[in-house]
Amino acid sequence: MEGLELRIVQRIVANALEEDVGFGDITTLSIVPEGTEGHGDIHAKEAGIIAGIDVAEHVFHSIDPHLYVQKLIKDGQAVGAGDKLMEIHGSARAILTAERVALNLLQRMSGIATRTARFVELVRYYNAKIVDTRKTTPGLRVLEKYAVRVGGGRNHRFGLFDAVLIKDNHIEIAGGVKEAIVAARHRIAHTTRVEVECETLAQIEEALEVKADIIMLDNMSPEVMEQAIERIGGRAITEASGSVTEETVVEIAKTGVDYISIGALTHSVKSLDISLDIVSESTP
Amino acid sequence: MEGLELRIVQRIVANALEEDVGFGDITTLSIVPEGTEGHGDIHAKEAGIIAGIDVAEHVFHSIDPHLYVQKLIKDGQAVGAGDKLMEIHGSARAILTAERVALNLLQRMSGIATRTARFVELVRYYNAKIVDTRKTTPGLRVLEKYAVRVGGGRNHRFGLFDAVLIKDNHIEIAGGVKEAIVAARHRIAHTTRVEVECETLAQIEEALEVKADIIMLDNMSPEVMEQAIERIGGRAITEASGSVTEETVVEIAKTGVDYISIGALTHSVKSLDISLDIVSESTP
Amino acid sequence: MEGLELRIVQRIVANALEEDVGFGDITTLSIVPEGTEGHGDIHAKEAGIIAGIDVAEHVFHSIDPHLYVQKLIKDGQAVGAGDKLMEIHGSARAILTAERVALNLLQRMSGIATRTARFVELVRYYNAKIVDTRKTTPGLRVLEKYAVRVGGGRNHRFGLFDAVLIKDNHIEIAGGVKEAIVAARHRIAHTTRVEVECETLAQIEEALEVKADIIMLDNMSPEVMEQAIERIGGRAITEASGSVTEETVVEIAKTGVDYISIGALTHSVKSLDISLDIVSESTP
Amino acid sequence: MEGLELRIVQRIVANALEEDVGFGDITTLSIVPEGTEGHGDIHAKEAGIIAGIDVAEHVFHSIDPHLYVQKLIKDGQAVGAGDKLMEIHGSARAILTAERVALNLLQRMSGIATRTARFVELVRYYNAKIVDTRKTTPGLRVLEKYAVRVGGGRNHRFGLFDAVLIKDNHIEIAGGVKEAIVAARHRIAHTTRVEVECETLAQIEEALEVKADIIMLDNMSPEVMEQAIERIGGRAITEASGSVTEETVVEIAKTGVDYISIGALTHSVKSLDISLDIVSESTP
Amino acid sequence: MEGLELRIVQRIVANALEEDVGFGDITTLSIVPEGTEGHGDIHAKEAGIIAGIDVAEHVFHSIDPHLYVQKLIKDGQAVGAGDKLMEIHGSARAILTAERVALNLLQRMSGIATRTARFVELVRYYNAKIVDTRKTTPGLRVLEKYAVRVGGGRNHRFGLFDAVLIKDNHIEIAGGVKEAIVAARHRIAHTTRVEVECETLAQIEEALEVKADIIMLDNMSPEVMEQAIERIGGRAITEASGSVTEETVVEIAKTGVDYISIGALTHSVKSLDISLDIVSESTP
Amino acid sequence: MEGLELRIVQRIVANALEEDVGFGDITTLSIVPEGTEGHGDIHAKEAGIIAGIDVAEHVFHSIDPHLYVQKLIKDGQAVGAGDKLMEIHGSARAILTAERVALNLLQRMSGIATRTARFVELVRYYNAKIVDTRKTTPGLRVLEKYAVRVGGGRNHRFGLFDAVLIKDNHIEIAGGVKEAIVAARHRIAHTTRVEVECETLAQIEEALEVKADIIMLDNMSPEVMEQAIERIGGRAITEASGSVTEETVVEIAKTGVDYISIGALTHSVKSLDISLDIVSESTP
Repeated sequence: MEGLELRIVQRIVANALEEDVGFGDITTLSIVPEGTEGHGDIHAKEAGIIAGIDVAEHVFHSIDPHLYVQKLIKDGQAVGAGDKLMEIHGSARAILTAERVALNLLQRMSGIATRTARFVELVRYYNAKIVDTRKTTPGLRVLEKYAVRVGGGRNHRFGLFDAVLIKDNHIEIAGGVKEAIVAARHRIAHTTRVEVECETLAQIEEALEVKADIIMLDNMSPEVMEQAIERIGGRAITEASGSVTEETVVEIAKTGVDYISIGALTHSVKSLDISLDIVSESTP
Repeated sequence: MEGLELRIVQRIVANALEEDVGFGDITTLSIVPEGTEGHGDIHAKEAGIIAGIDVAEHVFHSIDPHLYVQKLIKDGQAVGAGDKLMEIHGSARAILTAERVALNLLQRMSGIATRTARFVELVRYYNAKIVDTRKTTPGLRVLEKYAVRVGGGRNHRFGLFDAVLIKDNHIEIAGGVKEAIVAARHRIAHTTRVEVECETLAQIEEALEVKADIIMLDNMSPEVMEQAIERIGGRAITEASGSVTEETVVEIAKTGVDYISIGALTHSVKSLDISLDIVSESTP
Repeated sequence: MEGLELRIVQRIVANALEEDVGFGDITTLSIVPEGTEGHGDIHAKEAGIIAGIDVAEHVFHSIDPHLYVQKLIKDGQAVGAGDKLMEIHGSARAILTAERVALNLLQRMSGIATRTARFVELVRYYNAKIVDTRKTTPGLRVLEKYAVRVGGGRNHRFGLFDAVLIKDNHIEIAGGVKEAIVAARHRIAHTTRVEVECETLAQIEEALEVKADIIMLDNMSPEVMEQAIERIGGRAITEASGSVTEETVVEIAKTGVDYISIGALTHSVKSLDISLDIVSESTP
Repeated sequence: MEGLELRIVQRIVANALEEDVGFGDITTLSIVPEGTEGHGDIHAKEAGIIAGIDVAEHVFHSIDPHLYVQKLIKDGQAVGAGDKLMEIHGSARAILTAERVALNLLQRMSGIATRTARFVELVRYYNAKIVDTRKTTPGLRVLEKYAVRVGGGRNHRFGLFDAVLIKDNHIEIAGGVKEAIVAARHRIAHTTRVEVECETLAQIEEALEVKADIIMLDNMSPEVMEQAIERIGGRAITEASGSVTEETVVEIAKTGVDYISIGALTHSVKSLDISLDIVSESTP
Repeated sequence: MEGLELRIVQRIVANALEEDVGFGDITTLSIVPEGTEGHGDIHAKEAGIIAGIDVAEHVFHSIDPHLYVQKLIKDGQAVGAGDKLMEIHGSARAILTAERVALNLLQRMSGIATRTARFVELVRYYNAKIVDTRKTTPGLRVLEKYAVRVGGGRNHRFGLFDAVLIKDNHIEIAGGVKEAIVAARHRIAHTTRVEVECETLAQIEEALEVKADIIMLDNMSPEVMEQAIERIGGRAITEASGSVTEETVVEIAKTGVDYISIGALTHSVKSLDISLDIVSESTP
Repeated sequence: MEGLELRIVQRIVANALEEDVGFGDITTLSIVPEGTEGHGDIHAKEAGIIAGIDVAEHVFHSIDPHLYVQKLIKDGQAVGAGDKLMEIHGSARAILTAERVALNLLQRMSGIATRTARFVELVRYYNAKIVDTRKTTPGLRVLEKYAVRVGGGRNHRFGLFDAVLIKDNHIEIAGGVKEAIVAARHRIAHTTRVEVECETLAQIEEALEVKADIIMLDNMSPEVMEQAIERIGGRAITEASGSVTEETVVEIAKTGVDYISIGALTHSVKSLDISLDIVSESTP
């Protein structure tokens, strides 16, 4: 599974099946005779970027490892309404029972990839890269950050543990930007980057003085942001943040900022419309 | 926790913290001295219906059971931009570490409740009740179905195990609506209801003949639906289904249908904008 | 595995092996050389209905997926003393280590199926169907309810979550049968049935008035039960309950009741006597 | 919890509640208002020896740690029909939801203790002690072996890991009783006892020669058993085994054997009849 | 896996990979193209006894079941610096990601086996056998006790549950050696051995009187120990204990004691130096 | 618990108790009457730096939350032989059962802190900081890396997920140092540092050209290392690595390198000698 830890996908899928199937799919078990063969086609019902093909396949194989799954496209490909994404052959019972969980994951991941791709496209002529945030669905962060990458975006830190991000509250408690960065550097691994949220040019000066790796320009107007980036002059990576929309992203990119982080990539997603049609092939 | 299994909330929250906090919130641990007292206020930044207040409280108490949490509103209340929802006092470290997971859950649940409430409001003068589907976020179904109830909606079946829902594929394999219902009745518990998806009046007649409990009118035009409901004449519960939007819901309700199920209540949600402001109160 | 969620069987078997095998079968590991081939025959030592053949097979394969298991009968078949049920070939160590857990499950499940079949046989000329209760062994409900079906019985609700069953305590708190049913209907999914326990004809009238799906006739004498069933007149499903024995079940069935629920199917079971004989075939 | 690992009881109870309560006790949640106070009395409905009082208490506290539980008797006490065992005060919802799991465990454990006590009583004038086997319910071994102790019995080994028990198959593969014992002694810890199943006096001689700790006299007639015990002359502990019933146990005890192991203590148990009556005290 | 429960090895390895790999090996995923074939050789870099070959293989197969692993030696073999232990062919990504966990386990286990073998060698001309203690690394006891066996040592009890070991505190609370042994015998299974720690000859007399199975001679000088062993005269197994080193072990063995238990076998181990060299073979 | 995720400590301790206590501490349960009060003193038996006081306390409270634990020193303090570290009052049973796991953790963690402190002391007059590696005990990484910090050392990356470390194999596959760094930067989060292992000055030039954050000087002689550091001239953080011992560490520090990473801090540790003396205070 390209770029995704199998171990984590297994856990998410097992959890989802536990929740949905419980002690059994009573409809299917009572109506579909064991041994009935079926065939399922997964189609996109609207245009978008697909993410989660391997994850959906894993759902089907979790229910029945003997299902034959043929993947017709790869994650990251653009599809139009009506395009076929995947075919599944084998136990009709297994296909019916797996259907909803497979689609729920595939639709959500494709929704995120599609949304991300729109932002990436908008800033394509600029230096800026689109990155996600920690505003992901609890339990699904690995899948959602993967979908952002599939859509052409980049990832911000994974969690509270793999990078330092100093926010206003930390600064206030530490007694200043400089003090906060120095305190962090003193304890964390030398293999870890330090990012600091700055709201004023004075704070930026402090951050540069103690060599912050990344400076987050938080909720600044494009004019102030441009000034800030000029002042930084390449001495730190720059990141714009704060309620970025498709309407405002280009103006922000024009400032020359390195990264633009957007919570809405994952916290407010419209699932891509994808459906599964099943045909039974034979009854035993 | 009113109407929510504590056991399940605990599992979801533990899982979310594992994912986000990992081996430690390195920013907070290195900058905020142990023993620093803090105070946090949670505000709505836009109008909506709140759901998840108890869940958010549980997140804070999972990180530190000694935090003092004051809940200023209850799930189901409408709030406006700027309204305060909750205050938290205690360890500044704990508040900072718990913040993101608490908000991610509260925002998503409130987004669902708000969306549901809009649909419920639209059909308020009709018989129809708004219900959810199984198109929920994998792993969060209990919370999302709860949020639908908070928003004034009703729940459809929880999973594949607690009710029979016979779809077109089942009907095809069984060889007809009647055969499918009879097969289901033969195996399932007498304590379980049987719903069947019908696309034609002929199918409805079959369903009535073998006493289906619920007839789902799938993707019918309002005219046909009205005809169908008349034919059923109260002999089964009726449910409308299929790409229902805020634009089409009233027309559907006018048909006199009993329930309208809407996947978008949970599969395409905009999180409600809610934020946490923290003030440190003392450094030890 | 026909009619049983593999996921749940895996969990039960893993749990049972953990408990029995712990850090190792020290007898077998120290006496039987690695590579010794063995052959095991499972025989019934008394007559009965077999349930759990696939579950026993799963135990052997959990210890060693390379064991060759040949199943000579299917769940639901009647066997006599001496009949062979299963043959296992392969690692003698694996067969010896798996033996006890495989038999413990197979014997208990067959005990339940055999007991159920006796009750089913007794009421064979009547309308009544035999159903189980929630008086199952904690942790094994899925297997025990399956064994009831194998024995020709039917299942009652699986747990507290998949159907409403209103008992005397609920009625008392609600202030009456009618009030209790209305309260339940108001919150639960429309896909869920409501059963209510009635002790008097007056309660039955109330239940019918608000359309209870099922009326449980609790601890009634056959005479009163007959009267009750007549009064109900097909407007609700009827279920007899309360200390039913092989001595009383026919008299109850004669009342015309639809279902008879019997706790003793699962709470007081005599394991069917089944044993495994092992022959070593070669020492490496 | 006297003589029971809390850790293991917690796991069994959590597992049982997961199975029974699932996503919620929908009957109770919809009918009983939050805050309703209730009172429950647990009574024996037939005479027996009680086991599992602390386990039942743990079930109630798992659902709601604020329930006030008053235990009126202790494990091991004999009760008569009608005796009150326990009172519970607090949330009516919690009492109703916990009821079935608490009773299922208490009834089964008391059934085992009562059965064991009958055997113990029968052999009270003899040297023999009654012991259990590994024929326990998968997942509940800790509770069932505890119940045997409560009933006055003793435990055999807990699993395959804490003692060596050499059976006919091991002997055959090893090439003799002597060879099997020597092989075992060579690998296992010196802190572990070795028991060997013997069917003939010749085998017993071999076992004594290499100092078996315990000799199991398997399916011998009382006459042969007496002879065997005389031959052993205190050089090893003796244990009688094989389809022991209340009818045969005294005759076996008369042989002077040290221990009599009985599978039926746990594999074929009639739950003791125990019930819970709930009274609501106030509605909020 | 010879002499090791697969179930437990799986749990330890899964846990170790979870800890080390987390949400992904970001170095390897970003640099090594999917499909790159690699080849790894594991060499010893110093002389010692190897333990853990099968465990290391299991680590590689946990990351990728398609890796081809060729084991060139077996656990228990002595190797010299430069000897090759194992070859791995297949996905270069998988080999790189699994490397550290595989080596961490193999090095530690081989360190224990090597250390044990040195002690065993020292007492080779005496009756005494070298045994381990419960001073193992939390979570790895099964592997460490296995490594002791591989090094030619024997195991003491596995945990607090599989044998009785009465220490000074127990004796003091019981009111004497005799009382303690009698109390233990009264409750535990007859299949369980009783060991008692004695510091004086008087205590030994008491222990013999009530037939202790094993007498631990705790921190005695060789002279006193010899006297003690003579007094015991084979009526109980003897075990020497207390800060045994390579310098003192022979003198202790000379006393004729049966077992010598040594905490340092596992609590203070130098990992054996073992390394993995990887060569990529092809890029796709 | 200062600087340690409680969640992770809980999991490690639960796991360790499961392994050691299993179905019960049969010695203590059978000899020590319930209700016996005891008192335990934990003393150091040799000089060292203590780490794990809070972890040991957690072990005692996991067995019995009512134990009263008084901590007399804090992690990081130096103690001498005979110094008292902790007192525990309460249930004698609980103290006896928890003892071994508490000591196993405390001794290992203190062994690591003591070893680290020796290295830190040796380089105290130089710029260099001592850091750990991923050569930790599987399952205990969080505790061992914490113990390194307690001993005055610093941490390297936690696992494969929180920083990039490009080794020779990655370089070879990528086709050069430069190519490897560029490939990594292209995919990983901008919040993540990149370290690269260099063996020659030419490689260092490449690394600097594409702005590696950290350059690891692998197995270089002090002379070459000095040259390398001069060439780097502060443009990247420098780290020395490769079989560092107490004999060689000063010479390495003299080169002016920023960090020295030492696997032996955790892979070859002598537990600090610490013991627990228990006195029973009263028998009920």
